[in-house]
Amino acid sequence: MATVSPTPLLKDELDIVIPTIRNLDFLEMWRPFFQPYHLIIVQDGDPSKAIKVPEGFDYELYNRNDINRILGPKASCISFKDSACRCFGYMISKKKYIYTIDDDCFVAKDPSGKDINALEQHIKNLLCPSTPFFFNTLYDPYRDGADFVRGYPFSLREGVPTAVSHGLWLNIPDYDAPTQLVKPLERNKRYVDAIMTIPKGTLFPMCGMNLAFNRELIGPAMYFGLMGDGQPIGRYDDMWAGWCTKVICDHLGLGVKTGLPYIWHSKASNPFVNLKKEYKGIYWQEELIPFFQSVTLTKDCTTVQKCYIEISKQVKAKLGKVDDYFNKLADAMVTWIEAWDELNPSAAKSAELPNGATK
Amino acid sequence: MATVSPTPLLKDELDIVIPTIRNLDFLEMWRPFFQPYHLIIVQDGDPSKAIKVPEGFDYELYNRNDINRILGPKASCISFKDSACRCFGYMISKKKYIYTIDDDCFVAKDPSGKDINALEQHIKNLLCPSTPFFFNTLYDPYRDGADFVRGYPFSLREGVPTAVSHGLWLNIPDYDAPTQLVKPLERNKRYVDAIMTIPKGTLFPMCGMNLAFNRELIGPAMYFGLMGDGQPIGRYDDMWAGWCTKVICDHLGLGVKTGLPYIWHSKASNPFVNLKKEYKGIYWQEELIPFFQSVTLTKDCTTVQKCYIEISKQVKAKLGKVDDYFNKLADAMVTWIEAWDELNPSAAKSAELPNGATK
Repeated sequence: MATVSPTPLLKDELDIVIPTIRNLDFLEMWRPFFQPYHLIIVQDGDPSKAIKVPEGFDYELYNRNDINRILGPKASCISFKDSACRCFGYMISKKKYIYTIDDDCFVAKDPSGKDINALEQHIKNLLCPSTPFFFNTLYDPYRDGADFVRGYPFSLREGVPTAVSHGLWLNIPDYDAPTQLVKPLERNKRYVDAIMTIPKGTLFPMCGMNLAFNRELIGPAMYFGLMGDGQPIGRYDDMWAGWCTKVICDHLGLGVKTGLPYIWHSKASNPFVNLKKEYKGIYWQEELIPFFQSVTLTKDCTTVQKCYIEISKQVKAKLGKVDDYFNKLADAMVTWIEAWDELNPSAAKSAELPNGATK
Repeated sequence: MATVSPTPLLKDELDIVIPTIRNLDFLEMWRPFFQPYHLIIVQDGDPSKAIKVPEGFDYELYNRNDINRILGPKASCISFKDSACRCFGYMISKKKYIYTIDDDCFVAKDPSGKDINALEQHIKNLLCPSTPFFFNTLYDPYRDGADFVRGYPFSLREGVPTAVSHGLWLNIPDYDAPTQLVKPLERNKRYVDAIMTIPKGTLFPMCGMNLAFNRELIGPAMYFGLMGDGQPIGRYDDMWAGWCTKVICDHLGLGVKTGLPYIWHSKASNPFVNLKKEYKGIYWQEELIPFFQSVTLTKDCTTVQKCYIEISKQVKAKLGKVDDYFNKLADAMVTWIEAWDELNPSAAKSAELPNGATK
């Protein structure tokens, strides 16, 4: 049986955000780890449907009607009929940390057969520094039994604050539709016992299935874009957020960690449906990656909000010609920041302080 | 017992380079894996001492007298009384691939208890592409059971040729003297089942203990500098080579992999002796890292040799003022390239072809 430490880490400082369209039976398996925490459930699809949450969990639930009521016209920036809707949960939270997980993700086991407390590992990742400026060949130097190796500059050993912890998946890997189609039977069986910082200047594909972040440090960059209902694209929500987030973390001197913890991803989504959602994204991402590699943020961009608004301008200027969708997306990015600041007035105020005082 | 595949990979295309001052009894444990290959032994220290090599190994051995005879005045670029002398072996080899290993490194076991054929894994790493332009969260996408994840641009999935394979160490980790002093009992017990590409633009601490590379692609950059006898510094030989190599690989579009395979590093070197060798390096590396991060190579630098000569000029111009040692080192870098081209005339000739045709 799983064991939990008597006082869960950050119990009152972390919300778990779950986007869903069904009853949350999957929470039963997570009960030993999640029950002490507060859940924010973002119900996608038909708001009249009742979502059952197992007894004993502390939660708030928002459906589309709630989102429209709370955000008014600004609700247009929150996607519908797509798990991108989860970012409403990031915005409405009042906590310092967020963990978000998909409802088809279960507790994985480590090689010794022990249940993995994914949330606890994410919290450890977020509370320990990152090392984006130089690669450490023994991976995370702050873990027990590891350190900085010979040749690692001493001036860089203090690290920088960690803003994002990106966890991985055993069983069904997070493949795109073409790879799913080509390798329908592939399962991820490799447990890699590592956590590492993604180096500064390097982009990565951030998956929203098993993800934690520090809302105070990077929250306003975690916008999952316009996907799903009425949009020409899906399944790029987390990717978009990841590219924006990484560029802003690099600019502000914040760290992104990837690796442990694993969750057990139970069910592959339909590759034919996915292909329809993805095909424009597969094409567009060939332009998006060079775009994000060349985004430049000036010294004036001292807060996440300012960085994000600046990126939205560059999206409009440089990606608008790829497709008109990016003009709409750039506008939605601005709306998102306005809505974020409206719901988080104290954070918005401190973000206005000079010298990046929010850090 | 260890098992070896019937036809060892690259049997006639790879030399194993071993710097040593003692009898090579450690080869007994490597016999099942190394015996099919040719060894180049670089004897350091007193040339009159006879080094015993276990029977059945095919080898050539060079001591200081041999190096002086073969290189004449250019022998000044090869270090004495320091394992940096190993780079003479890279230069004298006529093979496409090099594996170099220290004589205090033994066969490690994987988590299932099986002996690890480190050389075979290095060869696999070198024969499979690298992915320096974008991070793959499931590590090496070319391994069995892995692939590129959702969001990885398709245009980058072909990868680039791998020039370097950097292996790791179980038991005694490769720590600097201060860390050795602070953590004398720390042992690396974590087997991380991963191979990854170090992203473009990111420097890393390359350790020469368990290292393989493609001589044709990157050989002339693998100069281990001026260390040991008569020099103000030691234990930065492999670091220097790694920084130069990484900058050149990034410029020429070549890949550097790190991770598997592990070897068993048996014995920690004396931290007090190491501190004496390292202390200037510890100080200087704070200047060296920003230097290598800012080295710029122009489009004219189409070969490793040209890149290396250009770096030597920048070393003189920018590091000469840090210490006169770097002026000497810059000159030795030029001598090294001259000696390399003298011993490898056909490679020097093909390096002259336009459009980087050696790649």
